Amino acid sequence: LPLGPVLITDTPGFDDEGTLGSLRVKRTRQILNKTDIAVLVTDATRPIDSSEEELISLFNQKNIPFMVAFNKCDLLSDITAYTFTTDKIKGLSESNQIYVSATEKININELKEMLGKLIPSDESRVRLVGDIISHNQTIVLVIPIDESAPKGRLILPQQQAIRDILESGAYAVTTRETELAELLSKMNPKPDMVITDSQAFELVDKITPDDIPLTSFSILMARYKGFLETAVKGARAIDTLSDGDKVLISEGCTHHRQCGDIGTVKLPNWLRKRTGKELVIETSSGTDFPENLEEYKLIIHCGGCMLSSREMIYRMKCAIDAGVPFTNYGVAIAYMKGILERSLSVFPGMI
Amino acid sequence: LPLGPVLITDTPGFDDEGTLGSLRVKRTRQILNKTDIAVLVTDATRPIDSSEEELISLFNQKNIPFMVAFNKCDLLSDITAYTFTTDKIKGLSESNQIYVSATEKININELKEMLGKLIPSDESRVRLVGDIISHNQTIVLVIPIDESAPKGRLILPQQQAIRDILESGAYAVTTRETELAELLSKMNPKPDMVITDSQAFELVDKITPDDIPLTSFSILMARYKGFLETAVKGARAIDTLSDGDKVLISEGCTHHRQCGDIGTVKLPNWLRKRTGKELVIETSSGTDFPENLEEYKLIIHCGGCMLSSREMIYRMKCAIDAGVPFTNYGVAIAYMKGILERSLSVFPGMI
Repeated sequence: LPLGPVLITDTPGFDDEGTLGSLRVKRTRQILNKTDIAVLVTDATRPIDSSEEELISLFNQKNIPFMVAFNKCDLLSDITAYTFTTDKIKGLSESNQIYVSATEKININELKEMLGKLIPSDESRVRLVGDIISHNQTIVLVIPIDESAPKGRLILPQQQAIRDILESGAYAVTTRETELAELLSKMNPKPDMVITDSQAFELVDKITPDDIPLTSFSILMARYKGFLETAVKGARAIDTLSDGDKVLISEGCTHHRQCGDIGTVKLPNWLRKRTGKELVIETSSGTDFPENLEEYKLIIHCGGCMLSSREMIYRMKCAIDAGVPFTNYGVAIAYMKGILERSLSVFPGMI
Repeated sequence: LPLGPVLITDTPGFDDEGTLGSLRVKRTRQILNKTDIAVLVTDATRPIDSSEEELISLFNQKNIPFMVAFNKCDLLSDITAYTFTTDKIKGLSESNQIYVSATEKININELKEMLGKLIPSDESRVRLVGDIISHNQTIVLVIPIDESAPKGRLILPQQQAIRDILESGAYAVTTRETELAELLSKMNPKPDMVITDSQAFELVDKITPDDIPLTSFSILMARYKGFLETAVKGARAIDTLSDGDKVLISEGCTHHRQCGDIGTVKLPNWLRKRTGKELVIETSSGTDFPENLEEYKLIIHCGGCMLSSREMIYRMKCAIDAGVPFTNYGVAIAYMKGILERSLSVFPGMI
């Protein structure tokens, strides 16, 4: 898709009646809270109905960019005769309606291109790292290859960082943590920044000379998703925990565990070691996120690379509303290892 | 999955009767020709039936590693009582049978781990680039960022190359083609190899000093998929084309076009310019691959990063059987630009 990685959520119909129907309608409304772009697929052979009009007014209320795909256009003798009167419906114009046919594969690429243009322009201005580096700089990326790394590939934050560095006209030098010292000793000139996976933070911090700025993929990701400040405050709450306090460790991946051993093993151990308290640690994963957050004293979330910004912000807001400190894996790790201040120095004003 | 990227093909049942049934059985047999690992899902509450036994004997005939997942195990009171007598069925042992429950999510991760162990060991020994580089070497990867690049990400061959370089304890330095000259001028020591996207081949060849080995992602991929020799021979057939000859340009991607403009615009133009002949150029994409290849004088295939090795080898064999030269985009481009010999110099004995 011309949008980059997307999560497509197919909602049930919005016009259902009866008990099950109203549950479905509720589910659709919930999903809208996490939706970046909505595509309403309707039947081109009949006019828009009242439930569809209601949906469009919800998109407008919630400020969700949307488009309408009039399907089954192959059954129309003359498309123009059926063209929707755009001034009747708020927010609908030529640039977000399209006639398609799923069976005849008409206008499918055009639909994707149209979708690509609907991405909120504010979002596209946020950069992972490109705004704090310059043309011709050299950035070292430390990428450990352990069992949690997907076979033969790079995880999304690593890809995104490389891509963003390339787009800045800079150079990304990738290395494992085990070769970092050797790499740094032979690099001339020195790199302009080192970005590490949080799991290798402690080692990388020791190896990287003090005059080279150092940060982590998780810290960049927290900023990218819009909650770095909250995450820094949240991490500081670790030292306020008491015996019996409940901590939620939440990860966004639903696929074969990737952050699993950090979330379920390493982080709990580090937390217990750092605080010396008897903590009650609960975990959640995938699209599950507990409704009642009040019982927790701290929420540590994964980087959220598989969740949309809207979903991460939604979860963060749920935590703030419940008065619960909210941070992410990498920021919490950096804090517990005593290197949070150093990792934040690439963002003047953040400390 | 602990296997890396996989393509999952769900085949229809094998026990269907009637006309439609025999079509489905034929389809399943075809798919087996492209299958790297087979998972037979059966019902744990009844014994294996004759059609399943037939399937297993097909796996054995075709040398396809397989496993049997006994589903609905939640309905069994005692799993051991139902355990399949493994010595009855050839190739079935403790290490490739598992009791699962899709509804109760029992043993799902264990199934994935078991799958991971079934990957053919021959395959896993083939490396994209790791076998021609050494620990502590520096490899420059030239990654153009144009409209065909997926937003915010890297394509699979780029990820695979970086990953393989990291696993060799070497360093991958990524740059756009527009900053390559600047990068090379400031690198000290010089890089040990440059790997470029084929689209920038001509420019990168000019910029890269003769004493630095140069190759491309496509050439590495052709070797990785097992058809580099065939591809080199195939590219040489370009100069034997005559007026009216049919050329097939085939790409494996089904998703939003990525190689589209190379396959449908650039390559045809380069071919016509190089040969000066009136060629009839046909294209195919995705899982479509013409059955009758005899009519073509040349087949130029994409790198096949979205297809399995087995599928690429299958297509190559179809071409060889039909007596049609077979090459890939990158090798063809390198040949037409006169840089194929240089790009192959990293594989002594290949020229």
